[in-house]
Amino acid sequence: MNTNSYLKELFDFLSIPSISAQSSHKKDINSAAVWLQKKFTRLGFDSEVLPTEGHPVVYAENLKAGNKKATVLIYGHYDVQSPDPLDQWITDPFKPEIRSGNIYARGVADDKGQLYTWIAAIEELLKNTSVSREVHSQGGILPVNVKFIIEGEEEIGSKNLDEFIERNRAILSANVCALSDTHCLTESQPLIDYGLRGIVYTQVKVKTLGRDVHSGIYGGNVLNPINIVANLIAKLKDDDQNILIPGFYDSVRVLNKEERVQLNKVPFTDKEIIKETGAEVVAGEKDFSVNERAGTRPTLDVNGIWGGYTNEGPKTIIPSSAHAKISMRIVPNQKADNVYVQFENYLQSIVPNGVELTIELLSTAESVLFETKSKYFKAAEKAYEKVFGNKPIYELSGGTIGAAAAIKNTLGIDCVLMGYGLPDDGLHSPNEKLSIFMFEKGIKTNIEFLKNI
Amino acid sequence: MNTNSYLKELFDFLSIPSISAQSSHKKDINSAAVWLQKKFTRLGFDSEVLPTEGHPVVYAENLKAGNKKATVLIYGHYDVQSPDPLDQWITDPFKPEIRSGNIYARGVADDKGQLYTWIAAIEELLKNTSVSREVHSQGGILPVNVKFIIEGEEEIGSKNLDEFIERNRAILSANVCALSDTHCLTESQPLIDYGLRGIVYTQVKVKTLGRDVHSGIYGGNVLNPINIVANLIAKLKDDDQNILIPGFYDSVRVLNKEERVQLNKVPFTDKEIIKETGAEVVAGEKDFSVNERAGTRPTLDVNGIWGGYTNEGPKTIIPSSAHAKISMRIVPNQKADNVYVQFENYLQSIVPNGVELTIELLSTAESVLFETKSKYFKAAEKAYEKVFGNKPIYELSGGTIGAAAAIKNTLGIDCVLMGYGLPDDGLHSPNEKLSIFMFEKGIKTNIEFLKNI
Repeated sequence: MNTNSYLKELFDFLSIPSISAQSSHKKDINSAAVWLQKKFTRLGFDSEVLPTEGHPVVYAENLKAGNKKATVLIYGHYDVQSPDPLDQWITDPFKPEIRSGNIYARGVADDKGQLYTWIAAIEELLKNTSVSREVHSQGGILPVNVKFIIEGEEEIGSKNLDEFIERNRAILSANVCALSDTHCLTESQPLIDYGLRGIVYTQVKVKTLGRDVHSGIYGGNVLNPINIVANLIAKLKDDDQNILIPGFYDSVRVLNKEERVQLNKVPFTDKEIIKETGAEVVAGEKDFSVNERAGTRPTLDVNGIWGGYTNEGPKTIIPSSAHAKISMRIVPNQKADNVYVQFENYLQSIVPNGVELTIELLSTAESVLFETKSKYFKAAEKAYEKVFGNKPIYELSGGTIGAAAAIKNTLGIDCVLMGYGLPDDGLHSPNEKLSIFMFEKGIKTNIEFLKNI
Repeated sequence: MNTNSYLKELFDFLSIPSISAQSSHKKDINSAAVWLQKKFTRLGFDSEVLPTEGHPVVYAENLKAGNKKATVLIYGHYDVQSPDPLDQWITDPFKPEIRSGNIYARGVADDKGQLYTWIAAIEELLKNTSVSREVHSQGGILPVNVKFIIEGEEEIGSKNLDEFIERNRAILSANVCALSDTHCLTESQPLIDYGLRGIVYTQVKVKTLGRDVHSGIYGGNVLNPINIVANLIAKLKDDDQNILIPGFYDSVRVLNKEERVQLNKVPFTDKEIIKETGAEVVAGEKDFSVNERAGTRPTLDVNGIWGGYTNEGPKTIIPSSAHAKISMRIVPNQKADNVYVQFENYLQSIVPNGVELTIELLSTAESVLFETKSKYFKAAEKAYEKVFGNKPIYELSGGTIGAAAAIKNTLGIDCVLMGYGLPDDGLHSPNEKLSIFMFEKGIKTNIEFLKNI
């Protein structure tokens, strides 16, 4: 396997700042989609860039294995999170660099590098089955039929993917979906996430004044929107991390004893959290373990806040408005729409008189659980065991992949989440990385998985 | 009086972006100081730019009236507030423009334009007493001895002024201080502020993590610094605007009945506040009127807040830290140092385990009250009556002028606050303005005041 030539190509892909949240990067989004489409064409796939209401989806297929073979739908996303705070990056987030065996770049773990493990696996399989080594990949035959669906809106909640899958149901039909957008526990211990949390992501604006005013002249006589937004946030959770929105926990699935025992075998403990995050303490709902909190309990976090004067030194104003981005991770059997309504109703019910409160829904995704007893999960287990030397541990993830719920609900197939990141990769954080060692293991495991089916 | 030539010169002064809070404007701060020093020299004053630990002080004197005449110390400041949010300005804050009889520019009311009413008054007095009209201002004699002290740190809490005044006590000795950095009630109704609130301005940092982390993987297991800072802010005031810091109100002077009656005659009501600020409601401590709240009650406001992702769209992170600028306006007989200690102790006592809380003191100023029975206040009353047709109303201001307390405490003289702004001038806000009509009245009133002494 020529890792260097794969890395060279991946670096090209990583250099495109395809930040889906920022409209100024619309051109880069399109470049990343076209980059993929061209790559698939070079591999002999039929490939297209398909429009949606938002960013396009790249579709590619190679069905030459024939009717008797299974079809695997491989999902990935070519969009990335915004890299700020930029000053915390050691090197440019869009100029990939290798340091101590790791590739550093925005999106290398989430998800461009992991997605590329599938592209490289396909290229390897095509090469090795090609009649003539000269024309290599073009001529080879894959052990299964393969379809790729690669979206550009994962980091903004996959808002147009449900509709896209619904509309392209027939084209996308497959026996199983595979995707790499999660991580292993260690370099030798793989994980399979058999469930994901959903999300309800909102933006809140609190306005109390027509303009910014002098805090001396008016202080004591007008409502300060920053104090108000802080009061609202403070009323969303108590000091023990319990969410105070009425009805919020009503439909949360309660795990049975056996499930709790299984889940708590996953070696994700206070120690790992403290090491990975630099936190001084682990803090969460009292009656649940860290694994239960991450995988089975809903949470609420403020992801951003701003208002008033935020520059150097003092400025004595009361601003006219203040803003916060507030998201909730949801779990089975909560429904995103219902949670949003509960959130909105609660905030509107506690906001003081004289305050203009505007709530905007930025994205949602449902939570999902997969059936792990099928032959496809067995194929993954076998592949992992061969490459890693260890069977995967099954866990419930705290993260969200909007596509996974849509694929399960609309196409009726399970997703095998074969992640090759490591817990300290810094997804969504400065200095995101992916280990080259894990990258290679990913390619090899994917090859085995496709062969095993 | 040639208003146009004064405006031309003032526009020059206004064009210097002398923002004291931002170190990138250090050069502009020095330019503004030198601009003043040159102007005073042209007027025949002895003038110097004197260094402090921070931004320099401009001192100028003309003592030609002789020993038998009183000495008036005129205070002003050449620094301005930061103009952001810039997108809310109709024209460039540092390119002065006249619209409908108003000058629009950052600092035109606070304080460059108001300070300039004294410079123009001096120039008029010098011209009219000059033997030869050719050499005009150079040769004239003022009716009193005049000293100017003009600082460059008013907007950042006059942090080096106390020490400067203490050190230059003898040079600055005078019978009274006059300054224009406040406003009239209407174009025909002048006000004299006989008291000012002080301030304690802090910056708070809450840190819970070593880096920004993924809100899915870690949400529910780590403390979110934005939620924590919101909780802390929420615990500083209750919903009725009472400050919850233990001991905070202990030394607040209680007004007697007569004082309350007098103060409540000032026609500053709910109606004015709503009109001037665009607020939907007036909100403050229940047992006090709007005048009492503004002039005699301490307040607490968050002036700025920031943390996490504040750009377009969603980003699912828990940031490592969050920040807020929190200030308190203080009143007699609170002491700034004591209030800061109370604030710090309270926050440190309520911050949860595992949170790193850093509190920085950005600026302080004491509150002050003046004796209004002296002949200097009579001189001001007479001047106002002549120019405005109405006697001034005495009120207590909610604002802070750090210099006023320092001058009273160190030099032992009262300050006559002769403000020529209007309530809707938008100090510290976008589109700050000063009416040309009021500017001219200011020059005339100052001339009368100096003659009356």
